[in-house]
Amino acid sequence: MENKHVLRRQKLREKMQLQGIDFLLVQSPANRFYLSGFELFDPQCNESSGYLLISPDKTTLMTDPRYLEAARENFFLEDIFIYSRNKFEKINEFLKKIGVKNLGFESQWMSYEFYESLKKEFQLAPFKGLVEEMRQIKDEDEIRIMRKSCNLNHKVFKLIEGTLQPGMTETEIAWTAEKMFRESGASGLSFSTIVAGGPWSALPHAIPRDIPVKDNTPLLIDMGCRLNDYCSDQTRTFWIGNSPSDEFRAAKELVIDAQDLAIKKIEPGMPINEAYGLVRSFFEEKGVFEHFTHALGHGIGLETHEPPSLGPDAKGEFIPGMIVSVEPGLYYPGWGGVRWEYMVLINENGAEIL
Amino acid sequence: MENKHVLRRQKLREKMQLQGIDFLLVQSPANRFYLSGFELFDPQCNESSGYLLISPDKTTLMTDPRYLEAARENFFLEDIFIYSRNKFEKINEFLKKIGVKNLGFESQWMSYEFYESLKKEFQLAPFKGLVEEMRQIKDEDEIRIMRKSCNLNHKVFKLIEGTLQPGMTETEIAWTAEKMFRESGASGLSFSTIVAGGPWSALPHAIPRDIPVKDNTPLLIDMGCRLNDYCSDQTRTFWIGNSPSDEFRAAKELVIDAQDLAIKKIEPGMPINEAYGLVRSFFEEKGVFEHFTHALGHGIGLETHEPPSLGPDAKGEFIPGMIVSVEPGLYYPGWGGVRWEYMVLINENGAEIL
Repeated sequence: MENKHVLRRQKLREKMQLQGIDFLLVQSPANRFYLSGFELFDPQCNESSGYLLISPDKTTLMTDPRYLEAARENFFLEDIFIYSRNKFEKINEFLKKIGVKNLGFESQWMSYEFYESLKKEFQLAPFKGLVEEMRQIKDEDEIRIMRKSCNLNHKVFKLIEGTLQPGMTETEIAWTAEKMFRESGASGLSFSTIVAGGPWSALPHAIPRDIPVKDNTPLLIDMGCRLNDYCSDQTRTFWIGNSPSDEFRAAKELVIDAQDLAIKKIEPGMPINEAYGLVRSFFEEKGVFEHFTHALGHGIGLETHEPPSLGPDAKGEFIPGMIVSVEPGLYYPGWGGVRWEYMVLINENGAEIL
Repeated sequence: MENKHVLRRQKLREKMQLQGIDFLLVQSPANRFYLSGFELFDPQCNESSGYLLISPDKTTLMTDPRYLEAARENFFLEDIFIYSRNKFEKINEFLKKIGVKNLGFESQWMSYEFYESLKKEFQLAPFKGLVEEMRQIKDEDEIRIMRKSCNLNHKVFKLIEGTLQPGMTETEIAWTAEKMFRESGASGLSFSTIVAGGPWSALPHAIPRDIPVKDNTPLLIDMGCRLNDYCSDQTRTFWIGNSPSDEFRAAKELVIDAQDLAIKKIEPGMPINEAYGLVRSFFEEKGVFEHFTHALGHGIGLETHEPPSLGPDAKGEFIPGMIVSVEPGLYYPGWGGVRWEYMVLINENGAEIL
């Protein structure tokens, strides 16, 4: 049981008290890991490795027998409840036994099936983002690890750029980058690498294809790794060959200018949606806004996509300790697209590129 | 739009009719892909790539703008609904517009948050396993692909066995196997590889560690790949060194005998829970049942873990076309464990090891 987990749970309890809840069921794998160190991943999205029950004076892990030994690395035996079969029934019995009456839960993570099984016995209260809100602000240790994760991303981008040649397939490039990440200490990718050549680069969400990259075309690479549990995420758009087209050069310049503008302006206290607004206005002024089809960025940490989202509807303001991506893009079905993505740390003075 | 998807949806509609539902919202990524070919994965467990709406006479994909181009590979433009921001609100409006009144949904996949947003406007009916039931029975094409996926697994097991040496770390072995899979055409792993040496092999769910495998200890490897979208999953337990201990030899013999017994008896029409019962009785007779701590196996296909589960509470009977794992194990905290896993195809006569 590490000290940081105890402190985080204490902070969560203060938030719970303000909301009037004594017990909170934590189901999100990243939240569970953040609060206890137990299992950052579920084996499948429809299969949980375990649930935390945050009580006023203790924390219990409810899990299945396969995880008992892993659980003991983070919990005393008396704080582990093993449910084996008929999970929902067993969890209901356990919660009743320890006197739970009101139970908070994560409304984005709780399935209808689980909810129905609990609602007969307990007063249920949905919550959204209680723990995610805490995770938005990285502590010193997290910042140190995220710098490392991001540095590895920079390193692999440099290495991969040196290998790019017409004739390599998109899947080959993606796999080469993945090997570089893994052989430099990453436990895995933080998301499926995007490698998109030519017109395919106009798809913000492109899956690498088994076809060769052509000479004198754009090539967009969006990739990230997981190092010591924390994610990185960066995008570059290269030109393969020696004669970048005028459209490409123009789009790249606009995208980089927009990114630069946003990063220079972001500072603590600025409303988050203003960052998107700045880029929107800039692109509108240049007459290209219709080609910018997604949010400006997103929080990143234990998950690739975390709050805050840097979109037009973002709530709240930038706070020191936040780490977010800033990734404007312009997409032209026909010839392709350009996206450029950095991760930035909000500090006392502004935004530092990681 | 492939013919197989149309046929599967037709079959699903017949099942829906029997249940009295006109509209079904499909949210499980594997079900969505099985029925339409669109996106086997969600980017994160709390982020959907899109939802299918199965109507009496058409199928609509509801997705966000990032997926528009991918969607067009499987849907006509008029059958794609793009929701952009305020997803739940937009989906509600769309469903109202097309006249939905009663809406079936997947109770294991629907989040409380989404459910709450829908329940004001629609009569909601929870369903569990409607599509999964269909997926249990693999068609000829699926069987052909799963044979390939399983063959690659056999091949990599042979290759990896040849490299095993004391002093290699568990993570090194896992990564070597992963590279072999990927460089032989697999798109990825079907689950995180388990490599567990010595006493660590007593954990059914063990994460590879960065420590060397010792001479004269057991080494359990449980691994699988995804080839042409379909999963494989196999386990072997090796002895590193020349002098397997008596406990290891005894446990391995019992596990293999139990597996053999089950595979020889499994046949169409046999209740699924009887397979577990056979192994249970065998282990009880040998006085080791307490060391067998999990189910006997699970269905496998587009997901590593699918119905049916081969546990004591399994419902239904074996049907030709099912592909399941058969994986008895015996675990002894102290020295380690042995698990042996094959995938078998239920055919007209019995169970064929893939």
